[in-house]
Amino acid sequence: MVVDFESTDSARSGKPLRHAQSAVFPTPVKLRKGGTLPGVEVAYETYGTLNEDRSNAVLICHAISGDSHLARHDEHDEPGWWDGLVGPGKAVDTDRLFVICSNVLGGCRGTTGPATLNPVTGVPYGSDFPLVTVEDMVDVQKRLIDLLGIQRLRAVLGGSLGAHQTLCWATRYPEQVQTSVVIAGSARITAQAIAFDVVGRNAIQTDPHFHSGQYYGTHEFPDTGLALARMLGHITYLSSDAMTRKFDIDRHAPRDMVTDFEKRFSVGSYLAYQGEQFVGRFDANSYVTVTLAMDNFDMGDTREKRLDTLRSAECDWLVISFSSDWLFPPSQSRELVALMTTLGEPVSYCEVETDGGHDSFLLPDDIEAFGPLVAAKLGAPEPKSPRKSAEDDRIFELIPPDSSVLDLGCGEGDLLARLKERGAPLLCGVEVSTALIAATMQHGVEAIDYDLNVGLPEFDDNRFDYVVLSSTLQVVPNVERLLEDALRVGRRAIVGFTNFAHRTLREMFGLEGRAPKAPGPYSHEWYNTPNRRFPSIRDMLELCEKMGVTVEEARYYDDTHGRVIGDDEDANLAAETALLVLSKSSR
Amino acid sequence: MVVDFESTDSARSGKPLRHAQSAVFPTPVKLRKGGTLPGVEVAYETYGTLNEDRSNAVLICHAISGDSHLARHDEHDEPGWWDGLVGPGKAVDTDRLFVICSNVLGGCRGTTGPATLNPVTGVPYGSDFPLVTVEDMVDVQKRLIDLLGIQRLRAVLGGSLGAHQTLCWATRYPEQVQTSVVIAGSARITAQAIAFDVVGRNAIQTDPHFHSGQYYGTHEFPDTGLALARMLGHITYLSSDAMTRKFDIDRHAPRDMVTDFEKRFSVGSYLAYQGEQFVGRFDANSYVTVTLAMDNFDMGDTREKRLDTLRSAECDWLVISFSSDWLFPPSQSRELVALMTTLGEPVSYCEVETDGGHDSFLLPDDIEAFGPLVAAKLGAPEPKSPRKSAEDDRIFELIPPDSSVLDLGCGEGDLLARLKERGAPLLCGVEVSTALIAATMQHGVEAIDYDLNVGLPEFDDNRFDYVVLSSTLQVVPNVERLLEDALRVGRRAIVGFTNFAHRTLREMFGLEGRAPKAPGPYSHEWYNTPNRRFPSIRDMLELCEKMGVTVEEARYYDDTHGRVIGDDEDANLAAETALLVLSKSSR
Repeated sequence: MVVDFESTDSARSGKPLRHAQSAVFPTPVKLRKGGTLPGVEVAYETYGTLNEDRSNAVLICHAISGDSHLARHDEHDEPGWWDGLVGPGKAVDTDRLFVICSNVLGGCRGTTGPATLNPVTGVPYGSDFPLVTVEDMVDVQKRLIDLLGIQRLRAVLGGSLGAHQTLCWATRYPEQVQTSVVIAGSARITAQAIAFDVVGRNAIQTDPHFHSGQYYGTHEFPDTGLALARMLGHITYLSSDAMTRKFDIDRHAPRDMVTDFEKRFSVGSYLAYQGEQFVGRFDANSYVTVTLAMDNFDMGDTREKRLDTLRSAECDWLVISFSSDWLFPPSQSRELVALMTTLGEPVSYCEVETDGGHDSFLLPDDIEAFGPLVAAKLGAPEPKSPRKSAEDDRIFELIPPDSSVLDLGCGEGDLLARLKERGAPLLCGVEVSTALIAATMQHGVEAIDYDLNVGLPEFDDNRFDYVVLSSTLQVVPNVERLLEDALRVGRRAIVGFTNFAHRTLREMFGLEGRAPKAPGPYSHEWYNTPNRRFPSIRDMLELCEKMGVTVEEARYYDDTHGRVIGDDEDANLAAETALLVLSKSSR
Repeated sequence: MVVDFESTDSARSGKPLRHAQSAVFPTPVKLRKGGTLPGVEVAYETYGTLNEDRSNAVLICHAISGDSHLARHDEHDEPGWWDGLVGPGKAVDTDRLFVICSNVLGGCRGTTGPATLNPVTGVPYGSDFPLVTVEDMVDVQKRLIDLLGIQRLRAVLGGSLGAHQTLCWATRYPEQVQTSVVIAGSARITAQAIAFDVVGRNAIQTDPHFHSGQYYGTHEFPDTGLALARMLGHITYLSSDAMTRKFDIDRHAPRDMVTDFEKRFSVGSYLAYQGEQFVGRFDANSYVTVTLAMDNFDMGDTREKRLDTLRSAECDWLVISFSSDWLFPPSQSRELVALMTTLGEPVSYCEVETDGGHDSFLLPDDIEAFGPLVAAKLGAPEPKSPRKSAEDDRIFELIPPDSSVLDLGCGEGDLLARLKERGAPLLCGVEVSTALIAATMQHGVEAIDYDLNVGLPEFDDNRFDYVVLSSTLQVVPNVERLLEDALRVGRRAIVGFTNFAHRTLREMFGLEGRAPKAPGPYSHEWYNTPNRRFPSIRDMLELCEKMGVTVEEARYYDDTHGRVIGDDEDANLAAETALLVLSKSSR
């Protein structure tokens, strides 16, 4: 049932690309919002080799204007839209993985869509093509995966509309997805994003050449409307900063070109060019169909409904967002991560700092930044071995094997890696830099990009046995709220900190009357230290008492002399560092 | 030359509104980008009474889709677009001020525009209407002001395109403008904002009913294109958060309506409604003309050119931006303020916190927030008298009369108000809350909304005699950079702070081993204090030495006992508060 097609450039005829294979499914396909297709054809490309037990297959889902041509098949091939991520030795390593990418249902690159001949009428479907949902797209992909004899996908990946398909795969066919990578996605798009799509579709559908969608036979195409929609789309894919950088150098001196569109400003001629290029490679009915699928994708209008949707998933997740993406803002990815966290689903998350806007998931520089996260999620060939430190040793000892642990400020994840080696059931690190998150993930541990300033509202009660705060407290603005949350989320909290009231610091301040300094977190100058809080052991114990927190265990250390402070000593004077095991009081 | 018109609703015929008067200028008007109009007619409305010496006239400039009907003329009148700001007893108080608002050149509400009959051809100008600039709009307004016998405007105000006109007035006719209020403005719009306008104009100009702009005689109008442009404009006027709030309640259950546009989503039917309403009250050629004027407005592509443009201004300024305005982002207003600051032009600035987006300048809630700033700028009838404090008394004494002063963290501006009463030549306060900025401005002192975390890069060297930091240091993350900048911007800095090494604090920490507390800025708990820095007198003196800063004078106080610390005492131990006068070392 697998057929090779000749190359063609005509999106309007819905023909597949040069390297695409085609799978034909002659049985009827019932669509979710009503309507049936008598059968479907799916154009797809594959990369790498399916291994014997068929366990290395990765499905990649494309965005609105993408297609099956994900990457070069060889050095002479045309570049694909995700060449930076997919290929031999790349993050999605085709030396190890078998990668599949199919044109979406409703598209115009070989998979059944509005330009396909309707077998009932003998002419292209046009606007008779039924309303397609992301679920329908995924159902058709599922047929393909079954045809290829793949029981379970090692991973599903996608950005933008591809992220929606990925979310849908994970929740619709949970037993078939091991890992889901959701890039620049959301539980549903914003009202603002729908609004832009509405204007784009209105431009297409009010184009006099649209002929109610039945333009294929007329030799008139709604090119003007489609070009307008594409111009608008392009603006929303870029950040304002990136546009300024790109178009303000020669704002009033646009490139001259032959066009019916305005070419007054540098950005104007760019948009005219983009719009006119697009009509040569995309079909207006497909644009309407595919954007409507995206606009209708909706995991639920309340938190509860979204939790219900996500609950069926059995995969582990990687969620990636981009700081300057205003079409799919990072807050929407954070919300997905919060839902997964609530459900106890294993998830890593990173917000990549970039001015690339929504397009970032396609840009080489940004792929370089998030590629290592994807690579780590798909399993690095050689895991790192964790580095040891005295503080980690002490905390490691305090945690019983088989405990689940949340490490707030996990650094490179060394403590978590050791706990994982010992067989901990559930581990999660929290950090803020992409590099530290990637480093933690390379140990095979989940890590989340998370702002501790807001507490831990997204973590459920008693999710972990232990919450660790190791050398983290001094940078937290609201210590009380974070401690409260740590003891809500964890049954116990382990707090390790440098004692600000250690003798040498007290003397410095008490006798010399200046801000004390000590090796470690307090080695900064008073006028530019990143620290915000300067806890002493006494301060911490008093805060615990005030909060009704039980100190189950307290260990104090004289690090300079490598000794544990005895019970007969004044720890607040003698200890350089402290380790407290806290739990909620039974009061 | 002043004529009354009958009411008409037809924007397409370019007729003025019911209350509009018309001024006819029969002499030719040469336009800046080429082209001449044989004469112009200006439709305008006025509010309040021009006083005898003609010194109370305020010109208000409208935005793209605005008109001369600014406010109700009486209780039976239709609301105007700035009713919340302009009227008896309001921020722009028509009991005291004579307010003028004219329809812009190129508009469609009575002032000469594309729908006006071209006397040469006897048919409307259409697309023969010459390219209009903001400068041309202002030149025509200037004719009107001259005709009304007004030598000097008390103020010019405007938001969005109105802000551009205001900037243009101030720099083009500097001797005629006392005060300029620039709301949601910029030195030029962003490349992103131009891009949206380009798509809007393309929608209009590719509408088959556009007929190259000569559609007036055809009884076919480019309504579809104009509606699309308006839909797009609407999206850019709102914030994404506001759209979510407004349209996500019934996202998939839009209001039903008769329309050729898509009505699938709640936001879709809203846009369809807005688009269709707009074509009834606006002319497509005017939309093209007026948006092009906005897109071409450009105070220069470099900082130097923008400074050159602004240098001619002789007015004092009020600049207002809105936190969620992504079409004219606050960074653009801050840039204007930085230029004015560099030029030593008196300026107050406030970024109003709101989710209203660019539209905020028209929204009642936001007008309530920024109205007091406008009222204060235009001169409150009864100035407040400043409150006295011990710290202010001491600083006041240290500053010689006739000194210019920048007060970083000026609170309600009481110190500045006292310096003003004594006749200081140049005063400026810095604060971050709208209420404190308004309070400072009510003393007749300029105040700027400014983030001290970034230092003072926008203030020129030696702009002030004194820079005051009174009880501010403890919240500044980078003390070193701020001090450096303070001594670059001011010839001297006066730093008042609570001494963290005062005896009681030292004892608390040295003996008790816990974070010290004291009345005043250090009265917070260690775990949630807003303070970030805890300077002692010794720390500060050591930092000054390290920085090569001269301590010209140091005064130390035992506030509890109301006495000055003597030279024979250990100030760092005995003083509760310190006041240092610093200058750059001659080293």
